[in-house]
Amino acid sequence: MARVVVDVMPKQEILDPQGQAVANALPRLGFEGIAEVRQGKRFELEVADDVDDEQLAKIAETLLANPVIEDWTVRRVDS
Amino acid sequence: MARVVVDVMPKQEILDPQGQAVANALPRLGFEGIAEVRQGKRFELEVADDVDDEQLAKIAETLLANPVIEDWTVRRVDS
Repeated sequence: MARVVVDVMPKQEILDPQGQAVANALPRLGFEGIAEVRQGKRFELEVADDVDDEQLAKIAETLLANPVIEDWTVRRVDS
Repeated sequence: MARVVVDVMPKQEILDPQGQAVANALPRLGFEGIAEVRQGKRFELEVADDVDDEQLAKIAETLLANPVIEDWTVRRVDS
């Protein structure tokens, strides 16, 4: 078994209302100095050893991310 | 300006219906060999250089994560 992390973030040119809501809330709560917040998704997968990188890329692109508005990265991590 | 990543994941003992929905969809879509999926959130922050780690931990704990059901990590990354 291998552990895989897939990060999915809104593309830079896409508005990110969730992240903006967080950024706007910070000064109200007394936290200064945060210029920008962007919110995305993080997936942790437990995959069998015979699942290759091509398959993982396909999973990320078709199921975990919407490639029209989101960028994604896949990386294997030590479990 | 520094770039900070905050990862927020459901605690291991907490049910994760979003992740389970993804895990259940994978075989239907022809992807075999994925044993477990957990879904969390990833935040990317642009912070001023005078924001210290203690402040970042407080932001993560009070605003970005719900520490009753979620674990979080804060790390600075190269921008």
